[in-house]
Amino acid sequence: MTLPATPSAGSFEGGCAFADGQYVPLSEAKVSLFDWGFTRSDATYDVASTWHGAFFRLQDHLDRFFHSLQALRLRIPYSREELRQVLHGCVRAGGLQDAYVAMVCTRGVPPRGARDPRLAVNRFYAYAVPYVYIAPPEQQRAGIDLHISDRQRIAPESVDPRVKNYHWIDLVQSMFDAYELGRDTSCVVDAHGNVTEGPGFNVFMVKDGVVHTAERGVLEGVSRRTAIELCQCLGIPLRLGPVPAAALRGADEVFLTSTGGGVLPIAKVDGVPVRQFPGPLTQRLSDAYWAMHDEPAHRDPVDDTP
Amino acid sequence: MTLPATPSAGSFEGGCAFADGQYVPLSEAKVSLFDWGFTRSDATYDVASTWHGAFFRLQDHLDRFFHSLQALRLRIPYSREELRQVLHGCVRAGGLQDAYVAMVCTRGVPPRGARDPRLAVNRFYAYAVPYVYIAPPEQQRAGIDLHISDRQRIAPESVDPRVKNYHWIDLVQSMFDAYELGRDTSCVVDAHGNVTEGPGFNVFMVKDGVVHTAERGVLEGVSRRTAIELCQCLGIPLRLGPVPAAALRGADEVFLTSTGGGVLPIAKVDGVPVRQFPGPLTQRLSDAYWAMHDEPAHRDPVDDTP
Repeated sequence: MTLPATPSAGSFEGGCAFADGQYVPLSEAKVSLFDWGFTRSDATYDVASTWHGAFFRLQDHLDRFFHSLQALRLRIPYSREELRQVLHGCVRAGGLQDAYVAMVCTRGVPPRGARDPRLAVNRFYAYAVPYVYIAPPEQQRAGIDLHISDRQRIAPESVDPRVKNYHWIDLVQSMFDAYELGRDTSCVVDAHGNVTEGPGFNVFMVKDGVVHTAERGVLEGVSRRTAIELCQCLGIPLRLGPVPAAALRGADEVFLTSTGGGVLPIAKVDGVPVRQFPGPLTQRLSDAYWAMHDEPAHRDPVDDTP
Repeated sequence: MTLPATPSAGSFEGGCAFADGQYVPLSEAKVSLFDWGFTRSDATYDVASTWHGAFFRLQDHLDRFFHSLQALRLRIPYSREELRQVLHGCVRAGGLQDAYVAMVCTRGVPPRGARDPRLAVNRFYAYAVPYVYIAPPEQQRAGIDLHISDRQRIAPESVDPRVKNYHWIDLVQSMFDAYELGRDTSCVVDAHGNVTEGPGFNVFMVKDGVVHTAERGVLEGVSRRTAIELCQCLGIPLRLGPVPAAALRGADEVFLTSTGGGVLPIAKVDGVPVRQFPGPLTQRLSDAYWAMHDEPAHRDPVDDTP
């Protein structure tokens, strides 16, 4: 597929989308009501970010996106390098320095009356908008109160959470519960009451100097992986495995990881203050997370010359 | 919300949609790429049908749709009677006699950067297209071969299947499996290996004169309910409860129920012929299903005068 010329820098000030092979304003980025990506949530996506004008770990997001496509038997008409160019193009056209950059592939619109997903032509979308935090900076400073919902995350035996997907009703409903209880955000559990993930983030805790996070039943977030690698680099003891809700409630430190904010300390769990906020290990990991953004190996600067 | 005037009969020949408060051609029915109905599959829907110019059990579909809306804390700006008028309008404008008629509500597009679902204005869509069968008539005659997938249906502890939703990755992937094995369609199981449902249908079996179907973990389909009520009316013994995959493989008769075809006999399960195809009880229920379409209590004729 031939790519269109990249629009000049800032030509879609504030954000730019790429749909049906063209760069378009955000308001024109639409999906057919008949696309199975909507009517069956038969789609995958990934979200990278730029910070101070450069993508962070873009290759890791591209790796995961292509893995997700393969797992769902979806295809995009672009090579890895072409996809990279489209994402750069969206950021540049949007005139953005700090951006939330999504790539999406849907099953597509089937021939009329057909029910066979092999007959649909898959569709590709991308967009860049200003950077979105999991929790706004003022809420981060005030201290995020995390609700542990009784709702169960969709099990990996049904939908593989490592394939990034839009099956979020469980997560959205847990957010409603959290707001009604006066909390700021939420996470859900597995069938055994172990904490899994929240809407757009992984959950970590620190107990007696050891960092813990779930090993399975969760998205293998790029920020989660960054936090894990940083623990290894910094010699911080780490254990991947079940995190019972009760353990999270009794933790010394709790933090979230997300492309939307990096390493975010949690102040309260279900209204009860976490022992240390922000905890020393959380702070160390957060500092190291942002310092990593300056490492050339993880940076892919957006060229803003036309 | 004021409704627009209904377009004259057949003015959108072949199908008509209703989006953002207007009747539009199907090609213009689109959802924003940023609508949480897409990016979180945070939406509900229902599908009714018309047969020979009249809706069948429309009130039951409206009941379920309003129940689903309430369960997901979604709202549409129309009363029940207004919604009925919109659905009638879509069928009439599409010039359709036998139609597949959908109503959809999405969470909507949130304010930029927001993550709180309470801040989005919910959106409503509807459309009528020519009647769609779960399996095309020629395949029905040749005999549908049903694959029992090892994949597990999303559990009710995560997403309530009685609230009709677009979380279908498990079902779609099971269809791919079925096609690769040379089967025609598929159903998935629960964590205990009991048959739940397939992509758009409930599954029934007959063993020793007793009709069986799953009691929980499945959509409470209107066609499923019709089959259940018909068993009661006709004095056919019925048992609601777990249907192990092995029991389905050893059944005397197997059939599916769906708005897309009513009561559909299954010829083979995993390539092995079902003892009776079409089975006598299946045939009796199918005949009664279509006869019910003529009962005034279940008919809501579409007025085709402008």
